[in-house]
This record gives sequence, C-alpha cells and structure tokens, in this order.
Amino acid sequence: MEEKEKTNILTTINTPADLRKLDEKDLPQVCREIREFLIEKLAVNPGHFASSMGAVDLIVALHYVFDTPVDRLVWDVGHQAYAHKILTGRRKQFENQRTFEGISGFPNPLENEADTFMAGHAGNSISAALGMAIADKSTPGQENRKTVAVIGDASISGGLAFEGLNNASNNPNDLLIILNDNDMSIANNVGALHSYLSDLTTSAGYNRLRNKLALYLKKKGILTESRRRAIIRFSNSVKSLVSRKQNLFEGLNIRYFGPIDGHDVLKLVKVLREIKDMQGPRLLHIYTTKGKGYKPAEEDPSIWHAPGKFDPETGERKNNTGKNENPLWQEVFGKTLVELAEKDDRIVGITAAMPTGTSLDYLFEKMPDRAYDVGISEGHAVTFAGGMAAAGKRPFVAIYSSFLQRAYDNIIHDVAIQGLPVTFCIDRAGLVGEDGVTHHGFFDLAYLNCIPSLNIAAPADAQTLKNLMHSSLSYSGPLAIRYPRGKSIGKVEEGKFEELIPGKGKQIRENQNAKIAILTLGAINKNALEAAEELSKEGIETDVYDMVWLKPLDEEILKKVGEKYSAIITVEDGILSGGFGSAVNSYYTQKNNPVKIVNLGIPDNWIAQGSINELQHQCGYDKEGIIKSVKGLRL
Amino acid sequence: MEEKEKTNILTTINTPADLRKLDEKDLPQVCREIREFLIEKLAVNPGHFASSMGAVDLIVALHYVFDTPVDRLVWDVGHQAYAHKILTGRRKQFENQRTFEGISGFPNPLENEADTFMAGHAGNSISAALGMAIADKSTPGQENRKTVAVIGDASISGGLAFEGLNNASNNPNDLLIILNDNDMSIANNVGALHSYLSDLTTSAGYNRLRNKLALYLKKKGILTESRRRAIIRFSNSVKSLVSRKQNLFEGLNIRYFGPIDGHDVLKLVKVLREIKDMQGPRLLHIYTTKGKGYKPAEEDPSIWHAPGKFDPETGERKNNTGKNENPLWQEVFGKTLVELAEKDDRIVGITAAMPTGTSLDYLFEKMPDRAYDVGISEGHAVTFAGGMAAAGKRPFVAIYSSFLQRAYDNIIHDVAIQGLPVTFCIDRAGLVGEDGVTHHGFFDLAYLNCIPSLNIAAPADAQTLKNLMHSSLSYSGPLAIRYPRGKSIGKVEEGKFEELIPGKGKQIRENQNAKIAILTLGAINKNALEAAEELSKEGIETDVYDMVWLKPLDEEILKKVGEKYSAIITVEDGILSGGFGSAVNSYYTQKNNPVKIVNLGIPDNWIAQGSINELQHQCGYDKEGIIKSVKGLRL
Repeated sequence: MEEKEKTNILTTINTPADLRKLDEKDLPQVCREIREFLIEKLAVNPGHFASSMGAVDLIVALHYVFDTPVDRLVWDVGHQAYAHKILTGRRKQFENQRTFEGISGFPNPLENEADTFMAGHAGNSISAALGMAIADKSTPGQENRKTVAVIGDASISGGLAFEGLNNASNNPNDLLIILNDNDMSIANNVGALHSYLSDLTTSAGYNRLRNKLALYLKKKGILTESRRRAIIRFSNSVKSLVSRKQNLFEGLNIRYFGPIDGHDVLKLVKVLREIKDMQGPRLLHIYTTKGKGYKPAEEDPSIWHAPGKFDPETGERKNNTGKNENPLWQEVFGKTLVELAEKDDRIVGITAAMPTGTSLDYLFEKMPDRAYDVGISEGHAVTFAGGMAAAGKRPFVAIYSSFLQRAYDNIIHDVAIQGLPVTFCIDRAGLVGEDGVTHHGFFDLAYLNCIPSLNIAAPADAQTLKNLMHSSLSYSGPLAIRYPRGKSIGKVEEGKFEELIPGKGKQIRENQNAKIAILTLGAINKNALEAAEELSKEGIETDVYDMVWLKPLDEEILKKVGEKYSAIITVEDGILSGGFGSAVNSYYTQKNNPVKIVNLGIPDNWIAQGSINELQHQCGYDKEGIIKSVKGLRL
Repeated sequence: MEEKEKTNILTTINTPADLRKLDEKDLPQVCREIREFLIEKLAVNPGHFASSMGAVDLIVALHYVFDTPVDRLVWDVGHQAYAHKILTGRRKQFENQRTFEGISGFPNPLENEADTFMAGHAGNSISAALGMAIADKSTPGQENRKTVAVIGDASISGGLAFEGLNNASNNPNDLLIILNDNDMSIANNVGALHSYLSDLTTSAGYNRLRNKLALYLKKKGILTESRRRAIIRFSNSVKSLVSRKQNLFEGLNIRYFGPIDGHDVLKLVKVLREIKDMQGPRLLHIYTTKGKGYKPAEEDPSIWHAPGKFDPETGERKNNTGKNENPLWQEVFGKTLVELAEKDDRIVGITAAMPTGTSLDYLFEKMPDRAYDVGISEGHAVTFAGGMAAAGKRPFVAIYSSFLQRAYDNIIHDVAIQGLPVTFCIDRAGLVGEDGVTHHGFFDLAYLNCIPSLNIAAPADAQTLKNLMHSSLSYSGPLAIRYPRGKSIGKVEEGKFEELIPGKGKQIRENQNAKIAILTLGAINKNALEAAEELSKEGIETDVYDMVWLKPLDEEILKKVGEKYSAIITVEDGILSGGFGSAVNSYYTQKNNPVKIVNLGIPDNWIAQGSINELQHQCGYDKEGIIKSVKGLRL
C-alpha cells in the first residue's frame, strides 16, 4: 500500500509550491513519474517527445529550488517544457495539449502565469529574460525576483541568442542562463572542460576566494562599478588559466559553471542552490540526453523528436499514412531539388536547422557538398545565399514561413535589392495546425508582396511546384514559392518539367452559367474546387481560377474576370491584410472597376492550435466557408 | 616640378590595376592624396567623413595586394568605403555621390563590379563573403579567387555577423575577414593582446611550425578532413597558451591575427601578403582611428561621422540650420520621452546603436539608468523590450524604419502575439534622401499592418507625436509610431499632452464645394495641404483628412468620405502594396462602395538617393504630384 502511494506523488502536485513541500529524496521519483506520464499521454496524443523527456530533471530541479512563478523561468523553443506545464497546474489538461481549444504545445503567457514568455521561435529566451532581470532590479518590490533563462545548444548558435549574451553584462542583473546541451554540438567548443571545473567554481572555496578578492579591491578603493567588468574579466582569466581552455561565455563576461549531468536531479538541486543567489549574469552548462528514460527515443532522438502516436510498450510508431497517398509538399520540394541539381551544377540547397523538416535531406544524401545546414540562423542562411548567388550559384533556400520572418531584412537588403537569383522555398505556409500561434505561416504573402523585384508564387498542385522550381533557374531575379504543411495534391512525373511564365494563372473550372468567379492562390485551391463541386450539385455554378502568382498578378485573368462575372471571391491561406485578396482589391480599385469582391483568408486575429481543418473552418475558408460565402452573395 | 608630380599620383589611378603598378614606397603618398581629396570633396558635398578617413590605408593596401575586382572585397556598412570608390573608377563621379542620379554613398553592385555586395545595413559582410568564398571553391575557373570581408567592431556585435562567424568553419573556404576596429569597443575583449602576437603568428617561423605539425600528423595518418577542426582547435589552444588570453574568434575556429596598426599601409601590405594565400577562414584585427588625417575629426569622431559642409582649413562646420526652424522629429521624440519618463517610473528607452540618430541621448543624459543602447542588435532590442514589458516596464524602442526590418520576427513573436505594451518609435520612415536605397523606410506600413493586435499611427505634426507617445502609456497593447527624417511640423508645448483614441483621425481642411477628399497618413499631410492651397487658388477645392492611424482605420471618416465625395486620393510616404492606400481600397471593396480612388505613394520599384524633395517628386507625391493627380481626375 505504501509502495503504491509512492508511485503517485505526481497526482499530489498541482502547483510548484506542492513540489517544494516534498522531501529532496523524493525528487528522482517525481522525475520517473513525469516520464511515465509523458510516455502514456504522448503515445495517444502526439507531441514533441524526445526533448521533453530530456528536460524533466532540469524542470523539477528548477521548480524545486526557485520560488516559481514569482521567480521567472523563461523557456526557449518551449516544446521541451511539457514537464513544466504538468507541474504548473496543467496536468489534467495535458491530454488536450496541441488540440483545438486545448492547451498549447508551447509555453504561452496568455495561458498560464508560469509561462513568462512566448517560446515558439528558438533563441529568444536570453534577450527576454535579460529584459525581465534588469526590469526587476529597478522595480520596487520586485528586486529579489530571480530570472532563469533556459536555452538549448542549437538555439544558442542563433544570432538573437548571441545578441542577448553579448548584452548580458552591460547592465546590472543577476540573470541565470541554463544551457541545456543535448547533442554536444556546442560541446565541441567547451565540452572538453572537465566536470571538476564545475565543482571547483561552484564550491564555497572558489567563491570565498572571489569574495576575498572583491574585499581586497574595495579596500584599495578600486572596486567601482566602472571597473566591475574589468574585474570580472580578470577573474575569468584566472579561471581560464586554471582550465587551460577557451570559453566563449567568459569572453562575453558571463560567469560559466559546468558542465554537469542534467539527469542527476539531486546534483542539479545542489548546484542551483549554490549559484542561485550569486550576483551578475551566470551560465550553467548541463548536458542531457534527448529522449532520456525511454530507450527507443534515446537511441534515435531525431525520429522521436515528434514521433506521432506509438505503442508505449514496444516503441512501435503507429504510422497511419496510407501507402497510396500523395507525398508531402516538402518531399516534392526535396526530390525535385535533387532532380534539378543533377542537371544543373549551379544549384545548391540551404536550410536553417531543418534538413528533415524541409526534406533538404534528400540533397544532403545525394550531394552533401552542395547542401548547407547553417543551424538556427535564418538571417545568415539568406545572406549566405545572396553571396552564393552573387558568385554564380543558384541557391534554393528552404525555410518555414514563420521562421523566415527572421530573415526579413536579409531578403530585402541582401537579395531583392540586388536582384540576385535566389529561390525561396517557403514551407509550412498558411495555417499549420497543432503547433499553433507561433508557427502558422500567416504573414509571408503580406511581408513579401511589398518588396519590389521579388516574384511570388504558390502552387496549387505538386507538378506546379516542380515547374516553378525548374522555371526559377531561367529567371534573372529572386523568386519566393510558398506551400503548406501536409500532403501534396495531384500527380508528379519524374523528369517532367514545364517552363512557367511569371504572372500566368489558369482557369480550372468553367461553366457558362457561372456568375461567380473564385480566385485562389496556392494549395487552398482544393477547397474552392470541392466547394464548387458541391454548389454545382445544388445548381449554383461557380468558375474557379488558380492564380499561381501573387506577383506579378495575372492582369489578363483579372481583366476578364472583372468584366465577365457579377462577383469575385478570393481565397488565400494567409492573413488578409496586404495579401492576395488585398492585391486583387487594389487592382480593381485602380482600374475603377466596381466589381463585387469577397475576400476569404485569415482575419486580423491570432489563431491558436487545432487541426488544419478546424482552423480553416474557424477562419471561414474551408469548403463550407466558401460555400457559405457564395450563397451569401445572393446573386 | 618633380615635387609637384608626386602630389598627383591619384590622378593616374583609374583602376585598381593602376594602383598595383606603383612602387610600394609610393603608397603612403597615395593615402595622403586620397585623404586630401576626401577633405576637399566632402567639405562641399557632405557625406560620411570620419569612418571614410579611417579606412583609407586599409583600402589602399587591399587593392594593392589583392587582384581586385577578380578578388572580391565585401564591405560592411560601406560608408567607410569612399576610398574604394575613388580607386575603382569613380573618382570623377565622386563629387556627385549621394545626389540624385549621382553615385551611391554605399557600395552597390548595380553601380560597379568592384562593389561585390550591397552594404547599407551593418553586419552582412561575413555571411555574404562566406557564400562567395564557398561558391568559388566549387566553381570551375573560380577556385583561386580570393574573398575578403571587412567588418567594423560595432557591426561584429550584431547577431548576423555572429551567425556568419559561427558558420565560417563549417565548409571549406579561405575567407579572410578584416576586423576594422576603430573605437576599441571590441578591444575590451581582445585588445590586450600585444602586437608581438601578430608578428609571431604571421611570421614565417610560426607557419613553418604549423606546417611541420600538419606534415607530422599526415604521416601518422590522422590528418583527415573530419579531424581538421580538432586540429585547428589544438593549434588555437597552443596560441592561446602563448597569449594567455581568451579569444572569441579562435573559439569559433577562425585563425586570428593581430591586432596591427591599420594606418601603417606598408605594414598592412606586408601582413596581407603573408596571410593572403593561407587556407581556411582567418581574421585580421586592425585598429584604426576614425577621422585619421584630419585633426578636428580625430578629436570628435562622433560629430564628424557625417558633419555636413565644412571649411577644410579651419574645420568649422557650416551649420545652415536657421535658428527659428522647427526641431527635428527625432528631437521631439527624444525630449518628449524625457518629459514622460519624469512623470512615469515605468518608462525606459531602448536603441540599437543609434542614441544620437534617434535622439535617445536626451534620456541617456537625464536618466542613464533608464536608457539602453544594445548595439547593432535590433532583434535583441525588441525582444529585450518585450521582456521588460512583461516585467511591468513601459519600453519605448527607437529604431530606424529600414533597420527595424531586422526585428520583424521579434515584433511579431516577442511583442505582438503576447500583446505586450511596447511603443515602437520608428524614425526615418518613408524616403530618407541621400542615404538612398538601403536606408529608405519603405516597408514598415506594409510589414506591420498585417500583424494582429499591433496598432499603428503616424503623426502629421509634432504635437500629435507627443500625444501619441503619451497616449501609448494607457493602451494595453503595443503601438507603432512612425515619423520621417527631418524637421518636424507645427508647434509643441512643453508639458502639454492630449489623450488620443486609437483609430480617430481628423478633417483639417473643409470647403463645401470640394468634390475630392485627400486622405493622408503622417507627416506627408504637409504636401497635401500645400497642394490643396494651390489648387484652391485655381478654383479647385479639395478637403484634406489627416487619418493619424493606419490601424485601426478611422471607419467613421471613411464612411463619410465614401458617401460625400466623388473621388478620394490617398497619400502616404511608403510603398503602396499593403500600405495605407491599400487598406483604404480594401475597406471600400468590403463595403461594396465603388468610390473612385487614386493611391499615391512609393511604387513597386527601388528608389535610389537624392534629396527628399527630388525623390518624392519622382514618386509623384510631392505637392506637384498631388496637384497633378487631382487635375487628372477631371471631375
């Protein structure tokens, strides 16, 4: 009976305060229970598995040592933070995570006060936490709040994280940064430090030495604020001599501790207690194993990043993809790039830490010396592509729509102004479903359409994607191609390519009785065709046009449509303001053609998580939404 | 006679090849002549003075040692590169630099092949040059081209530069990076290295040692490509032990040389020759003095960054600002922020390396602990502001419009999604004049208007800017305020503030005979008023509305205007696609109101340099352009 109760500590924890009431020796058991809970829940309601399993011990230790949520934890790419959600009052809601009207898969301050900051895009935790730490220092009543930023070894290679680190010692603050190092990509630089260094530097002995030094300098009248940095530097170089190693962080005036085992929860608690009340910015380097506690995931963390449903006993993943289904859009991209690269030596492929997610891995496999993964550095990816194009290459840059926001200035300044022939293959455009608000590819049509000399296209079917990629090789300037997450549409033929003329759309449904034209951009065309089919059964005829190009717009089609039909419905998988419908509106306004137009797309609101169908329905541009709009026109 | 000819070497140099024909001992004279030329020309046709003077010797040495333009020089914030323009065939055009239809003030590949990449926004040179260096390695016939990236010590603190550095050793390349360190902000980290280190590391002796080591390892069969990095690390740590210092660059696997005197052209030539043919990414650290060769500029490089016209003999700057003129927009911002901060403890001000350019220096002077300059790190600036807002502060972020493009994802992900109350004060919005294509604030209206929950306003007069800043303190979410370069409009009163309701515009010219309404957003309203005044003299009456807000739009005004007038002209100082006119078009389209609309603003083209008046005229929204549009309506 007592044994049984022991396996149920987790059910007694509804807030971090409950966790802190436990005896320290129970913490390993809490970690085990959280892992069991995660395996059980994620086997049926899929999510990010491997990184969440790896961060369990850290999360338990942080909530145990720090007075959360008064003390602030700031996550980075927060899909590792499931244990945090479970410990902060969302254990019961966890089975609805990532579903429509459920809780988000990422930390979200609008969901829970323990989620101090949005954490969907990698690399922002240091900058945000630094803002909090410095703000608290000067806010009456908040001076003693602690702030901890957690960042992964992949995230920290991004420019934003570096900017945060580089600013960490500029203003007084006591920010603690935890570097959660789970694939040793950083260990190449600093991992050779032995763990005794951690013991040395966090031990009372070291700090006594440090304090003595400070006292001595104070006595001598030289411990002024203006000299603080120089002293830290001095202190760092002492350690540097001890360690006989270079340390990037200490070069940036951030005290470095570690590395220590991130799965030894008791050790974590001990070290966190020792460094908790120290002053000034500090970094604790821990190493963890992705998928920790679940063998299949430990062995192949990449596949288990987001494994889908699985059998918890056997680890067998339940791949419910039908064999005759169409390939994913990303696969069409990935395979086409290889096909093209085999024929054209100038082609190179570039991704920012997403070789699998974008299917650039096909090129990596076939031509590793022509495929580049620059890490979570979207800005660099685009400028690097600009440099390659300036030297005669034909770069294809594959980045998710929402992450490409990070390379906005690079697209403008380092590619488009110079008219360089870079092909942007923008994956996950439009609503992406379960990853929710931070990951939807809402904005690309709007933020790209305003850039002169950048052409923009969106294929409605897989063969058009192939044709666009092929055609871009003969264009002199840049081209952006956007396509959504999920299964592609239509058949593709290997080796078959057609030259597409920019600004040339096509009519794909025609009926002489049609009074309404539905104009679509991209894969969302499918919804329009299905709607038209169903309306036709009810005797309402609509013609459907696949515009293919946002820029240049097919003015020939627009002219014809403006004259022929009583009304136009535009449909796009993107935000309405500044997008496709908006461009169509401006065309007719400029032509002084008062044709009736209805714009369907994402309204001026943030959209949370859910299935793509549910979200398209919510926004009113699924099949039903289009049917409703047509009927609403009452022509 | 011989003496006289000696002072005229520069006139014999029309290409870099001409320079390379000279005897090495003539190079100091060439540098002197270029400096004299710069002083003479910039005294009458203003430009970026101090940094250009500081880079003369480096530029001469680079063109002398490298086979430019076959070898590629990639500049960073290229306003330092005037000497490069002079040596690459543009000496005669130089007196027209930065003027309408003249040459650009920045390197521009569309202007000259020696300008290998666009260099208006700081920090892109390493990424772009890396792209070129890697591309050349795999392009038949280009394998031996050299690529040199020049970067300043301020630029290198930005995230993009770090991403470039972090990727520099991932793929085989022989990129040479020159760190032009001219204010010792980096010297704090690595400047304590003694110059003997440079002699040591670039000397034949060191490289013999290195080669011996490589040979030995090869013999032992362990010099494989996969071990290359480890070996570089080993070699670096040897150097690190020698120097007893940490070195950030070597931590990133980039061989470090220097620092050396960047004004000793013969030394530069010697060192560049020594390291020119080395393999792998290298960084040469040189230190230079801004304004070198012109005493007044050396003494106050900040004022002499872009001093305007001056007397070359006395150094007296010709300040042609009339005493009774209005303050600059930026000054209204800067002074208002101090006024508000004195009353509201929550207020902080943040800039990204532009305290003077944005006038945040007023706050720095009065309340240094509430003003933050994060360096050239726009992304961090915005995320840091988000963190501060999350902790209860009211951050005002002052960034130029075109540089804010670098923080696009941060605005979306780290502020707007979370509805955090950050006030963006967007300076240099619209056409900026002489700085040209990379600096115009074209896009902000389009790239911001698509972001849900972000309000956007543009004041037509200085008091409205004050009112908007004041009012933002009572709004719950973020606000973007954009205003142009140059003199503000109207009078401001100290201590006077009015609460503005989002989405409330105002009619500012009314005549019962008016058939045309001119709707404007922001300071460009002035052009509309002047046009209306002049049209009225010809008997053509127009009413003028200052909309103040892009988001929310004043639908009350739009409704009234749509009913009352025969035609509407929208005027904005920004790109038309996705901007103010576009939003107005969509409003009437959605209301099914077929009112005639003409949109004035920046067309879908890149706009080069010139005076703001010339460029507004070119785009058709200066006073004359508006008059022409009104007359063209033929009502």
